[in-house]
Amino acid sequence: MNAKQLNDFSQLCIHTITTRPWTIEEAAKHFSNAGIGGITVWRDTLAHRSIKNTGQMIRDLGLRIVSLCRGGFFPHHEYGGRRSAIDDNKKAIDEAAELGAPLIVLVCGASVHQSLEDSRKHIFDGISDILPYAVDAGVKLAIEPLHPMYADTRSAINTLSQANDMAEKLDSLYVGVAIDVYQLWWDPDLQAQVKRCGKKGKIFAFHICDWKTPTADLLLDRGLMGDGCIKIKQIRGWVEDAGFNGYNEVEIFSTKYWSEDQSLFLEKIKHGYLNHS
Amino acid sequence: MNAKQLNDFSQLCIHTITTRPWTIEEAAKHFSNAGIGGITVWRDTLAHRSIKNTGQMIRDLGLRIVSLCRGGFFPHHEYGGRRSAIDDNKKAIDEAAELGAPLIVLVCGASVHQSLEDSRKHIFDGISDILPYAVDAGVKLAIEPLHPMYADTRSAINTLSQANDMAEKLDSLYVGVAIDVYQLWWDPDLQAQVKRCGKKGKIFAFHICDWKTPTADLLLDRGLMGDGCIKIKQIRGWVEDAGFNGYNEVEIFSTKYWSEDQSLFLEKIKHGYLNHS
Repeated sequence: MNAKQLNDFSQLCIHTITTRPWTIEEAAKHFSNAGIGGITVWRDTLAHRSIKNTGQMIRDLGLRIVSLCRGGFFPHHEYGGRRSAIDDNKKAIDEAAELGAPLIVLVCGASVHQSLEDSRKHIFDGISDILPYAVDAGVKLAIEPLHPMYADTRSAINTLSQANDMAEKLDSLYVGVAIDVYQLWWDPDLQAQVKRCGKKGKIFAFHICDWKTPTADLLLDRGLMGDGCIKIKQIRGWVEDAGFNGYNEVEIFSTKYWSEDQSLFLEKIKHGYLNHS
Repeated sequence: MNAKQLNDFSQLCIHTITTRPWTIEEAAKHFSNAGIGGITVWRDTLAHRSIKNTGQMIRDLGLRIVSLCRGGFFPHHEYGGRRSAIDDNKKAIDEAAELGAPLIVLVCGASVHQSLEDSRKHIFDGISDILPYAVDAGVKLAIEPLHPMYADTRSAINTLSQANDMAEKLDSLYVGVAIDVYQLWWDPDLQAQVKRCGKKGKIFAFHICDWKTPTADLLLDRGLMGDGCIKIKQIRGWVEDAGFNGYNEVEIFSTKYWSEDQSLFLEKIKHGYLNHS
């Protein structure tokens, strides 16, 4: 049961990291000119700028700010490390509020110096800690499960089932999940877990890109939609059937695409979006 | 609940791929001289040799042949491809019988030209097809779930839960699972699934190595025990508590280690085995 054909770019959102060589001003202008509906802002692009004015600049261009990337990275085997992660997440919440982003995506973190069980406990405790602060600021938090190949340093939450468990346990309208096809496409339990979080209104974000064969680098060789083997349209169908009607966010880390002319790359993104998403 | 300390090499088995630069004769001689109990033979090492005599050579050196690697790779979007996979698996069974290997490890396969669901159906059908042949030959088959990063081309079976489901459905004393810490360490459901297959006597093999941070290559940068973050001893404890008392098989693909003097590498394997497994 595939999703229906995409015919325009009103539900397309692009992450600033996808076109990383562009400044936030360049990205916003190009996305807006292309008729793209949304932008997800990575925190590094906000350095040396008024965050408030940057948010206004983006809105003035007719773009919706979909989320701020990223918070998280809670696990740390030293207490001081965990405290500073909490502080940094509160700072991210401040930034999201200033920017006018309704959501922060959490890459939860992991540490090779401790067990996955300990990391998961730190993640739960960390989100619990920052949650009242996020509620006060009116900023939602999305737990993004990451591919198991990132379980060493990036996330001890590696399936949607785990993310759902945690989101349900935190039991707040401000905590949901981010579903990224790159992280989750392989999971035989994916469709059932998408239904589960959809039913509870907890699908806060949907990220797309593709899995290349071969994948030359664990982090920086993501493919554009159509470059690989992920059944993106099928997964989008599941997500939409589960009640999600937000943006389809293109999040690609790729040294290959970053080395290209970003205007040409944007054309490829638009093509991949309409034809392979 | 960790496993007890390892004090000798009687339960150590090394895969010939681990010390790939060595011929099967060199590997067998070195393993035997080191007092190592077992060897798992990769099929490529048997080229241009009498398989029967090679098996005898290994046994004469006092080594147990633990398994033959590897069968599988059933999924193919063309019928002809699936047929030739069946034929090749029957050939592997013949080779195992000739060699005197009681077990074949199945890397089940996947194809970017079809869905994971189709690939899983081909895997089930493929194993069903070869099973009577394996039973006749007295050769067991171990379904090895592979890490989700291999779901594009190597295996559509990516969790122990899936492998257990399939092994139970095939319902034969000749079908079990191979548990490889590299493939499965991240899985929050691992301990429960180890118990599940242990209770049914279906743990046919246990493979060890380590996950390096960073991992430079998806296939050929596995670590030696102690190089990385996998809690090998904890997982060995789970496997032994579940009733497994077979060999601890060291299976490492590493361009780094293959480029070293293999005698020195063997010393490192012995050290890593005693101290980090």
